Amino acid sequence: MKYNPVDKKTVTELARIVGERWVITDQEKLEEYSHDETPKEQYARMPEVVVKPADAKEVSQVVKLANKKLIPITPRGAGSGLSGGAIPQFGGIVMSMERMNRVLEIDRDNLMMVLEPGVVTNDVNDKIRDEGLFFAGYPMSIETCFIGGNVAENAGGGKAIKYGVTGRYIMGLEVVTPTGEIIELGGKRVKDVSGYDLKQLMIGSEGTLGIITKVIIKLLPLPGASVDLLVLFRDVKSAINMVPEIMTDVRIIPTSIEFMDELSFKTSCEYLNEHLSYREAKAMLLIGIDGMSEDQLEIEYETIGELCLSNGAIEVYVADNHTTQERVWSIRRGIPEAFIAYSPHMSIEDIVVPTGVIPKLMPEIERLEKEYDIKIPCYGHAGDGNLHATLVKNPDTTLAEWYKIEEKALRELYSVVGKLGGTISGEHGIGSKRRDYFKDVEDPVVIELMRKIKRAFDPNNIMNPGKILDIE
Amino acid sequence: MKYNPVDKKTVTELARIVGERWVITDQEKLEEYSHDETPKEQYARMPEVVVKPADAKEVSQVVKLANKKLIPITPRGAGSGLSGGAIPQFGGIVMSMERMNRVLEIDRDNLMMVLEPGVVTNDVNDKIRDEGLFFAGYPMSIETCFIGGNVAENAGGGKAIKYGVTGRYIMGLEVVTPTGEIIELGGKRVKDVSGYDLKQLMIGSEGTLGIITKVIIKLLPLPGASVDLLVLFRDVKSAINMVPEIMTDVRIIPTSIEFMDELSFKTSCEYLNEHLSYREAKAMLLIGIDGMSEDQLEIEYETIGELCLSNGAIEVYVADNHTTQERVWSIRRGIPEAFIAYSPHMSIEDIVVPTGVIPKLMPEIERLEKEYDIKIPCYGHAGDGNLHATLVKNPDTTLAEWYKIEEKALRELYSVVGKLGGTISGEHGIGSKRRDYFKDVEDPVVIELMRKIKRAFDPNNIMNPGKILDIE
Repeated sequence: MKYNPVDKKTVTELARIVGERWVITDQEKLEEYSHDETPKEQYARMPEVVVKPADAKEVSQVVKLANKKLIPITPRGAGSGLSGGAIPQFGGIVMSMERMNRVLEIDRDNLMMVLEPGVVTNDVNDKIRDEGLFFAGYPMSIETCFIGGNVAENAGGGKAIKYGVTGRYIMGLEVVTPTGEIIELGGKRVKDVSGYDLKQLMIGSEGTLGIITKVIIKLLPLPGASVDLLVLFRDVKSAINMVPEIMTDVRIIPTSIEFMDELSFKTSCEYLNEHLSYREAKAMLLIGIDGMSEDQLEIEYETIGELCLSNGAIEVYVADNHTTQERVWSIRRGIPEAFIAYSPHMSIEDIVVPTGVIPKLMPEIERLEKEYDIKIPCYGHAGDGNLHATLVKNPDTTLAEWYKIEEKALRELYSVVGKLGGTISGEHGIGSKRRDYFKDVEDPVVIELMRKIKRAFDPNNIMNPGKILDIE
Repeated sequence: MKYNPVDKKTVTELARIVGERWVITDQEKLEEYSHDETPKEQYARMPEVVVKPADAKEVSQVVKLANKKLIPITPRGAGSGLSGGAIPQFGGIVMSMERMNRVLEIDRDNLMMVLEPGVVTNDVNDKIRDEGLFFAGYPMSIETCFIGGNVAENAGGGKAIKYGVTGRYIMGLEVVTPTGEIIELGGKRVKDVSGYDLKQLMIGSEGTLGIITKVIIKLLPLPGASVDLLVLFRDVKSAINMVPEIMTDVRIIPTSIEFMDELSFKTSCEYLNEHLSYREAKAMLLIGIDGMSEDQLEIEYETIGELCLSNGAIEVYVADNHTTQERVWSIRRGIPEAFIAYSPHMSIEDIVVPTGVIPKLMPEIERLEKEYDIKIPCYGHAGDGNLHATLVKNPDTTLAEWYKIEEKALRELYSVVGKLGGTISGEHGIGSKRRDYFKDVEDPVVIELMRKIKRAFDPNNIMNPGKILDIE
């Protein structure tokens, strides 16, 4: 696929559509739009121009222009992604959704909210807390990421075990197709089986099938109380075994069951100067529950605590107020930063396996650590089998060597995950970072069906090309 | 699209694949496979042959044969559908999944279950009740329908307000594509954003994109207790207003909020000889809640009951044991049968609107009743805005007249629903019954995208043709 460069005439036409002020061609300013949260040296690509449309009509006109002129166009939210989704792989136009950041409606009767794609996810909850409502999407980047990006990546996060991922709460979308048509998928409807579920197909398609210009989300009643338990275990198996036990034996669905292996929590605690007594613990679970009242939660957390203690837990710390909850969660959230301090080069992964096989995965991870002389802390959303196994460069290795090691180790990690019935990405997406690996683990028949869908939506392959799939 | 007839040679080849015993050509026996639960006179079509494969390999071989010979093939579950989905619109092969009815695995560690498509949905729960688990899919036909059909139609039902529809619980599928390839979509993974979500695309595609040969479902902890409240209201608006109130004011998500208008509950009560004192009630809600313990539920139902009484409810009946629960639910479930007794010709619809606009929908329904001299009882899943507005023939009208009236009234009903932000089917699907109406209410650009997807999967249009879309 040969694309055309963005020439002066195109820049003028773009300025006519969105206004001169909202077209960037200055190299220094373009740099900001060349990367996301993946390592810059490896994955960044420069756009030729950035445009910032004000509404769906402008988005449509820009897309029609790009489609006619065969110029690639890459939609971009907050740039907080971890798979290269917002990076302009073949240059061309980056379309930043930052100006489309209005809350259009809070619909209390239908418990829904209508948003432009550039609304910061955390701001959604700030707007509706007083109404006794909340949005259950909860990616770890909630303070910076945009709702449009959450939809495009079908963001997961830390509350999926009870609340599911972003897609569950997306009732309707307005989308500009790769040929520039504005369509509506779904709406303020809790049920809808009228034709193929194109809304769901759009969710998680990483901006390759269209640009999201409006989002209707579903809201839930805000729980009245929440408690977190930090539970220390002697071994990984006892910790992981608790996941089905909690749900079957005591019939409680926690909001979170976060897992940390020894390497993760020790590195984080040392980095944070956290003097938690973790004694002989080899694994920790951070179990969150929420509910209508504190009284009800007290019964639930006592039940869970006792269950853990009678199944191999060493210690249960209860965090039932904001201060203690922040303290235990900071250990979990501090892990990536702690490892950056140790060695800045790493590959943050988000592999998924059936929860029950996590104990089988851990020895394989240890084997890879030894084989490649790297560290692989494992932490993340155990309740979903979704682990941030993070390949961390040995500080003594050169960068050139690291890139070779990284590729080999990733390939082997993904192969292990595939054999265990898992897949390579549970929440970050394939993007450009995992595109070539994706072909290794997915059935070619399935890949070809995905290619056909891509071609059906985007015959000229101008919409975020180079992501998920190779298209000839 | 011209199809080839099923000739003797083809029957022989089919017998070679599935065994002679599992090929039906006898006209009398074929009749059973010519219809679903839509009225026979209007929608039934005869298959030329019925085959009953034993496994995915046989399914694949039959599909490959049909694809090569250009013979249409229609997959069939229990035949309990309400949109003509299992009816062989162009004759050809009906593939009944009735022999593929094994429970393959109960995976307690991952809280999942692996099923063949022909398992009766209710049997799923019978198998896992003792493990303290349940499957949250709950179509009204649960006692007869097959899990494969539930997936193909993305069945809804009476517990969607809390638990969502079938699709939420489908973790993985094995599917035979229209070209006969066996593929796996998803798996025992709670999160998965690796490539386009073809699993979700398959769910609700009404057997037009492939034949489901294996289903992995997610299980939940079985609630320890449940209570139903039958609440009588003076008017429709007060009843519907309770839906968001319950969730925001008292922060409880009920399992069900079923609505019955006056015509519905009076006809049902009279039919059942139920001497419930409904006094001046114009609307009823049947509110179900479940939870861990009876103590917790007692607080919740008292809270909901008080809220209803202070917001226009006349009376609240509490059903907290099996006998009383059966009694109140029988009023709701008895409605269709009560109307069949009154007039056997009807069109059971499952329109969806934003819940908040139900009070605006009701006067429009009354207008249609007068305009066409028919009855349109409205009942169903108010918590989801999903109503079984049922067009019932006036017993005095001839059948020929009725068909004309039905078409006009349906077209007008769907138009009203569309203008209110709703759509024509929330759980029954488009099938053959609503195919021509679907074009009236859906954007042609969206329809064309659906057609392209259909062609990408099924280039020869042999897989359940004549459903959802017209394909040239």
